[in-house]
Amino acid sequence: MTGAVAVTAGLARFVAASRWEDIPAAVRHESKRALLNIVGAAFAGCRHAAVDHAIAVLAPFSGPTEASILGRGERADALTAAFVNAAAANVLDFCDTHHPTIIHPTAPVAPALLALAERKRSSGEALLHALLLGIEAGCRVGNAVSPWHYAHGWHITSTCGVIGAAAAAGKLLGLGAEPMVRAIGLGATQACGLLESLGTMAKSVSVGDAARNGIVAALLAEHGFAAAPATLEGERGFTRVMGHDADPSAIVRDLGTVWEATRNAYKPYPCGIVLHPVIDALLELRTRHELRAEHVEHVSVRGHPLLRQRTDRKRPRSGSEAQVSLQHTAAVCMLHGKADVAEYTDARANEPAVQAFGERVEVHDDPALPVEAIAVSLRTTDGRTLTHAVEHAVGSLGRPMTDAQIEEKVRTHAAMNAPAVAVDRLIDAVWALDRADDAGAIARLAAAPAKT
Amino acid sequence: MTGAVAVTAGLARFVAASRWEDIPAAVRHESKRALLNIVGAAFAGCRHAAVDHAIAVLAPFSGPTEASILGRGERADALTAAFVNAAAANVLDFCDTHHPTIIHPTAPVAPALLALAERKRSSGEALLHALLLGIEAGCRVGNAVSPWHYAHGWHITSTCGVIGAAAAAGKLLGLGAEPMVRAIGLGATQACGLLESLGTMAKSVSVGDAARNGIVAALLAEHGFAAAPATLEGERGFTRVMGHDADPSAIVRDLGTVWEATRNAYKPYPCGIVLHPVIDALLELRTRHELRAEHVEHVSVRGHPLLRQRTDRKRPRSGSEAQVSLQHTAAVCMLHGKADVAEYTDARANEPAVQAFGERVEVHDDPALPVEAIAVSLRTTDGRTLTHAVEHAVGSLGRPMTDAQIEEKVRTHAAMNAPAVAVDRLIDAVWALDRADDAGAIARLAAAPAKT
Repeated sequence: MTGAVAVTAGLARFVAASRWEDIPAAVRHESKRALLNIVGAAFAGCRHAAVDHAIAVLAPFSGPTEASILGRGERADALTAAFVNAAAANVLDFCDTHHPTIIHPTAPVAPALLALAERKRSSGEALLHALLLGIEAGCRVGNAVSPWHYAHGWHITSTCGVIGAAAAAGKLLGLGAEPMVRAIGLGATQACGLLESLGTMAKSVSVGDAARNGIVAALLAEHGFAAAPATLEGERGFTRVMGHDADPSAIVRDLGTVWEATRNAYKPYPCGIVLHPVIDALLELRTRHELRAEHVEHVSVRGHPLLRQRTDRKRPRSGSEAQVSLQHTAAVCMLHGKADVAEYTDARANEPAVQAFGERVEVHDDPALPVEAIAVSLRTTDGRTLTHAVEHAVGSLGRPMTDAQIEEKVRTHAAMNAPAVAVDRLIDAVWALDRADDAGAIARLAAAPAKT
Repeated sequence: MTGAVAVTAGLARFVAASRWEDIPAAVRHESKRALLNIVGAAFAGCRHAAVDHAIAVLAPFSGPTEASILGRGERADALTAAFVNAAAANVLDFCDTHHPTIIHPTAPVAPALLALAERKRSSGEALLHALLLGIEAGCRVGNAVSPWHYAHGWHITSTCGVIGAAAAAGKLLGLGAEPMVRAIGLGATQACGLLESLGTMAKSVSVGDAARNGIVAALLAEHGFAAAPATLEGERGFTRVMGHDADPSAIVRDLGTVWEATRNAYKPYPCGIVLHPVIDALLELRTRHELRAEHVEHVSVRGHPLLRQRTDRKRPRSGSEAQVSLQHTAAVCMLHGKADVAEYTDARANEPAVQAFGERVEVHDDPALPVEAIAVSLRTTDGRTLTHAVEHAVGSLGRPMTDAQIEEKVRTHAAMNAPAVAVDRLIDAVWALDRADDAGAIARLAAAPAKT
């Protein structure tokens, strides 16, 4: 029934036995960066209509209001808070990206842990450790089924995320290897999320489920609920049913040596990642040459064919479409000098000036360029041709966001959506979290005081 | 992006527009039989360890205790009650079976409706109508992806069940066609359940999720939450991602003419359906010849090869394995004169007398027999050979359980697990439900008074 390697059992043993002090310092630091980044992403998303709807619909079923909704005043039981916070963190696709799989790994995992830590006192070290291991588990399962899984139509952030969340919640609960096998299995059998839902609020439901059901899986396992021993690699398990020619052994290869968190990058802009070097180039040209939109006659972007295939989209009709439109993105960079959440709303997509500028933007294939690189050539109304090339965008693995840039992401979006949050205290608390007794403080600090 | 036929929209329109009075009387009656049967199945399963664990784990997160747990004293919020009741109804595989797909269609749908009806006053007719339409929606989606879907490894009761539950809950909420499209889509994008989990408690998690998430899908849709317009038939929608060469148009073919509830059968015995004619034959021989187990030297069963492939299993080690063991089943029939829940426990599987009798039981292939038919030849210690053949077992489509037999299923399992339930009142209330003002009465009648 099972593969040659005991995959679920091997992953469970690793997660259960892992010790914080055995993890390299740089990897441990990444857990703080992932946490801070997801708080910034949740601040950016926490006022999205999908989040409003989810809170309104789920609040009447909430049990004890033990857990915080990030950036907002409401509170809910831990399962509901995990659902809502995961949806908020991912709704704008502004969270993190595990490059080998394009999983957004932290959105389902961190909200599960933050909510659980408010329910059951846990140390900061325990939360950061569980977060790293949850990212590890989810991304490794993703490695095993990629690239077929996403290409076939699975929303990999949700499908692998529930497994990551289950492993993480299990670690925070202190599960041993045997119950951890069951927690992972109970996560895997709840894996869901169709790509058809992308571009609509429906995307957020499976992401929220992933966080919520990861907690449920771990709690059921802790309580003695049974599961199959090889839910990841078995004949009718995750990698065979939701993969094709998958390599389940990749899930347990080099465990403890290769850390997936080091292949995880944070986004400075809430739009498709292939657009990021274009934004860097246009903002650089705008600043350096003191350009304004009316000085620009034409913009030509050269990039890997994926850039054109994914983003050559004139006159997007919604914020969601704008997030994957090169024309829109170039327009807001030149018109507004930034590409932040406010530049990707439905209203901004339909602004006549933005749409008109988009008509002056073209994209051309250059298969010789790596997918991370682009070159911009811009013609001004006074006849100059200005060029700028970007090899690695800010926020790529080749040029990661600095700690200070992640802090800025938190500050910007707290100011936008959660101005009552004591953002300096919050940021300090995350950087010092490995020395804190009570990890629950993070979610409480990240919640705005209740509205009066 | 979508198929030639607007499948999700077509199904949604049908469900939203359906009128109770346009449905044939025999089909309408089937909704009461399905409801009564699922209550009997839930009584049988409500004390299973999986249900105990689920209640213990989820109760601390429960909101207002507005909804009943069938056969038990606890109460919970409607979402939690739907999860628990669906798990209980299906945990023993003792519910109903839609023959074209082997979906157990009522287990996710009825618990969603019973819980919702306790939360929001609904007429009995509205509940029965929504139940029929939920069975219809789930089974039709199953038809479109069968037989590949189950054979590939999907627990079809869960994966299609969440769509049925969403449609049913949407109907009870009175959604129009447009929000119904979104309810179905929000159900489909939460479809989950790996067959690897079968034979363990983990099976029950995705069944519980199906009921719970069906309600969530309908409530989100009612509230304005968006979803893709073609989540069933779209390029990355349910039938393409979770099917192979699927026929999405089957979902909307002959809507209102062919009713899937008429292809749904109720089980008199809590074991694999291929064993049912064997039970009928052995109990008949036992009664007719006043046999006792010690009079039986040898039992030989002839059947379609599927019978041997699925059930030739000596000395099963657990109740779950016993449910698919011909040897165990023959032994309890001859030793105990019945094949009910008490005959499929771990303890009963390990009884020396049961195991010893199983050694005297053989099964032989007869490809000429249809899969519903078997022939038994039994040799007695005094040298007689007794034979009996069964063409259609009780509970098959060819010989459905009578209303009285379904009542008896409810009585037997109420007596076993919920003796405080006023079972006659409950049964009367189900038969009269189409004339009742308050459908919430059913779940309240089916709940045992709280323990004192």
